[in-house]
Amino acid sequence: MVEEFRIKYASVVHLKKPKLNEPILIEGLPGVGNVGKLAAEHLIDEIKAKKFAEIYSNDFPPQVLINEDGTIKLVKNELYYWKKKEKQLIILVGDYQALSSAGQYMIAEAVLDIAQKYGTKMIYTLGGYGTGLQIEKPKVTGAATHPEIVEELKKHGVDFKDEPGGGIIGASGLLLGLGMLRGMKGACLMGETSGYIVDPNSAREVIKILTELLGIKISFSKLEKKAEEVRRITERIKKMEKAAEKEEREDLRYIG
Amino acid sequence: MVEEFRIKYASVVHLKKPKLNEPILIEGLPGVGNVGKLAAEHLIDEIKAKKFAEIYSNDFPPQVLINEDGTIKLVKNELYYWKKKEKQLIILVGDYQALSSAGQYMIAEAVLDIAQKYGTKMIYTLGGYGTGLQIEKPKVTGAATHPEIVEELKKHGVDFKDEPGGGIIGASGLLLGLGMLRGMKGACLMGETSGYIVDPNSAREVIKILTELLGIKISFSKLEKKAEEVRRITERIKKMEKAAEKEEREDLRYIG
Amino acid sequence: MVEEFRIKYASVVHLKKPKLNEPILIEGLPGVGNVGKLAAEHLIDEIKAKKFAEIYSNDFPPQVLINEDGTIKLVKNELYYWKKKEKQLIILVGDYQALSSAGQYMIAEAVLDIAQKYGTKMIYTLGGYGTGLQIEKPKVTGAATHPEIVEELKKHGVDFKDEPGGGIIGASGLLLGLGMLRGMKGACLMGETSGYIVDPNSAREVIKILTELLGIKISFSKLEKKAEEVRRITERIKKMEKAAEKEEREDLRYIG
Amino acid sequence: MVEEFRIKYASVVHLKKPKLNEPILIEGLPGVGNVGKLAAEHLIDEIKAKKFAEIYSNDFPPQVLINEDGTIKLVKNELYYWKKKEKQLIILVGDYQALSSAGQYMIAEAVLDIAQKYGTKMIYTLGGYGTGLQIEKPKVTGAATHPEIVEELKKHGVDFKDEPGGGIIGASGLLLGLGMLRGMKGACLMGETSGYIVDPNSAREVIKILTELLGIKISFSKLEKKAEEVRRITERIKKMEKAAEKEEREDLRYIG
Repeated sequence: MVEEFRIKYASVVHLKKPKLNEPILIEGLPGVGNVGKLAAEHLIDEIKAKKFAEIYSNDFPPQVLINEDGTIKLVKNELYYWKKKEKQLIILVGDYQALSSAGQYMIAEAVLDIAQKYGTKMIYTLGGYGTGLQIEKPKVTGAATHPEIVEELKKHGVDFKDEPGGGIIGASGLLLGLGMLRGMKGACLMGETSGYIVDPNSAREVIKILTELLGIKISFSKLEKKAEEVRRITERIKKMEKAAEKEEREDLRYIG
Repeated sequence: MVEEFRIKYASVVHLKKPKLNEPILIEGLPGVGNVGKLAAEHLIDEIKAKKFAEIYSNDFPPQVLINEDGTIKLVKNELYYWKKKEKQLIILVGDYQALSSAGQYMIAEAVLDIAQKYGTKMIYTLGGYGTGLQIEKPKVTGAATHPEIVEELKKHGVDFKDEPGGGIIGASGLLLGLGMLRGMKGACLMGETSGYIVDPNSAREVIKILTELLGIKISFSKLEKKAEEVRRITERIKKMEKAAEKEEREDLRYIG
Repeated sequence: MVEEFRIKYASVVHLKKPKLNEPILIEGLPGVGNVGKLAAEHLIDEIKAKKFAEIYSNDFPPQVLINEDGTIKLVKNELYYWKKKEKQLIILVGDYQALSSAGQYMIAEAVLDIAQKYGTKMIYTLGGYGTGLQIEKPKVTGAATHPEIVEELKKHGVDFKDEPGGGIIGASGLLLGLGMLRGMKGACLMGETSGYIVDPNSAREVIKILTELLGIKISFSKLEKKAEEVRRITERIKKMEKAAEKEEREDLRYIG
Repeated sequence: MVEEFRIKYASVVHLKKPKLNEPILIEGLPGVGNVGKLAAEHLIDEIKAKKFAEIYSNDFPPQVLINEDGTIKLVKNELYYWKKKEKQLIILVGDYQALSSAGQYMIAEAVLDIAQKYGTKMIYTLGGYGTGLQIEKPKVTGAATHPEIVEELKKHGVDFKDEPGGGIIGASGLLLGLGMLRGMKGACLMGETSGYIVDPNSAREVIKILTELLGIKISFSKLEKKAEEVRRITERIKKMEKAAEKEEREDLRYIG
């Protein structure tokens, strides 16, 4: 007897079926400096958003993560919701982005299918913009589906590059691009970041502008604490690198 | 509740349904020196061809591109048409070629399906032929589906290599190869190019021969301007490289 | 005439249909130090488990292996069973793990489908934990689906790391993660190992704890013999490396 | 309007439907030293086998090859047949093997489906066995599906390695491994070859033994001519390398 099994899928497990009306979709998945992920997770914590769906996919790494108590969890993406009268949000966070190009499209379509059922008309995607330099006061760079949103974002201090030819890779780009084909509007907010280290400092700038746009007030102190911690670690690494470099130079002198 | 989503696709969005009769299919997608893309886009501009379809695929990079005004567009391929009595064209251009082998075949079949519905019997694919050298007056090398087309092209100054074993990789090859299986004829025109930089100079030679073959008269001045610009940039880079090289040699002397 | 063929599959060939009631599923596929594979194969040998199914997949390497007598076998995974009254086991071993992420999920789901039909409620997956160091007396590190299993394993001497963020990649992780979604419990036992060489010494520690947990008594002498052999080979390699290193240093002196 | 296209396929185009009864399947696709391909193509030429089917697949490189006369051909595999009373052959040759693991399985299954319809019970696959050394008189190494075939091959001078753990990668392995699951017998004949260059010398040894096994008499003179040509080219390359090496050593002296 021979049985056959199918390959490649994304499955959405609905934990709850919240009643939502035209919620704004916000995405913060891992990426450059983990800026989007840090920003979205901070928002979830501060507004106490509730999880309502989990997305599993065989295009995520074939992996479980180990929690601090020794228990495990399968790699996944998660959808949270929050509502306060007319203000309604769906927030997408997760452990990984899809590995392949086709997987990226598949997961983005799956998320948009859900958002569309709830009547979503606006999407904000959050990410980092790698500059290769460490920046004390990072700017937030934007891109949007429509010129009127570009204008709106500029009023909130979002920066727009003149150079053409740039791109937004992964979920932050695809959700907007595929959303447009469904008649949705949206924008991507990208915090400047070195790209070498997780960057809560940049995430704070992104979430500041996002909450302003949404008309929501939250505290940023937890992100600031994390930023302080990262700053300390970075300083320590720099000192170690300098020491190592000095040693190396001396070795070279010896060889030369 | 668990929903399942499907992976891997190419979708054609038809914007218009033009009436065409045996249009010639022309392809100019990104490739060596972007010669084919530059040539086909120049043709579209000059003859004022109209877009009638967009091709999206999850085998394109999962990416949106940012326009100069801060708005975005999802990565795609596009089909244009043009007709002047019996002279009728379909022109394929785009941001990217498919990433995987299977995607390349899929997109080529999708394009041929459309062309076949319009009765296409002839295909010209445009590309670059990397020589590793910068060439002032690039030749146009050819390959064709049938010996009689080889002879025809030779009359128009197209070069044919004696060495066997060469190949044409990507859409420029596949559209011809898969087109043959559908009874279509065709040829590939490849402009010699260094392969290191976009090459409007080579594109001009390609489009010159193509328009001659099609019996269409267009101006080449825009391509010549671009070629001039590229020449200036290349000169500047060469100077910078020489300076850097000199510096490096001095460094080596110091170490040695 | 044109025929079409389908791509990507996993097929289970059932050789026997054993009667089993809630068997515990044990996995030992190739991985770090081949610890899991060595441990599971040792268990099969000692308790004389019987093969009842073979799993073939086009996500295994496209390869046959050559036996010592010159005959060949197609790369596959295998399922064995064993029962002694209430104690019932299904053991998964094989030549390779699936190559792609999607293949990993597919094979894991295929195995869980079979186990679920037999009523499996508990899974033990076996593997190595690469430390980069050679360890005389390797510890066994654990991870589990539920806190009560973590506590149970600790009583049997299994170590649990405090650092969060670790992960279990491949079948050892996925069977547990996907099993949880089906309501199964389970744990992964990982023997510390250098990661540079197959490690029967580490496998013995893993299988010791597993058999204790299962309440089964077996001999470890065959694994100990293998461990002794590996120790001898490692010593020989170390001596050769030292000699080569010395030679290299002398060469450098010559150049310097 | 949106249309959808499907991805991944292998298509068999049947050019003729020969009447065959239990033909022996012979495979010679590109591989180490192109030994199998050279051997199978030589056989086709000498016995004047006729092509009856072409296999196209989107898991072959997305490429056309250019013939000497400037015409092109799409990358494919081909099936030839030959019969002389009871002696009946199907011979598989081609430009490329499938690129992915799944594609390898797919093409092998497609070929076995065809062979099975004709009643094939025996398969010979031909390949090279890379030794890293140039060998004047290469041996032919074997592997087989059944012990009795191993014994039979030994009588014809085929060598069998004692070391276990070897493998046969690609079509030469898979056709045998997947054939076994359909009840077919078979063997792989691998000519020793350096692995650095196409090796008609090794191919001659392989085809000598194969034709002996099949009871067919052919001339080897064309392969010998090719071997002579390769020998001349190799000598020339060796001389050039020696010269380049000498020059490099002098450069180093200058720097040192």
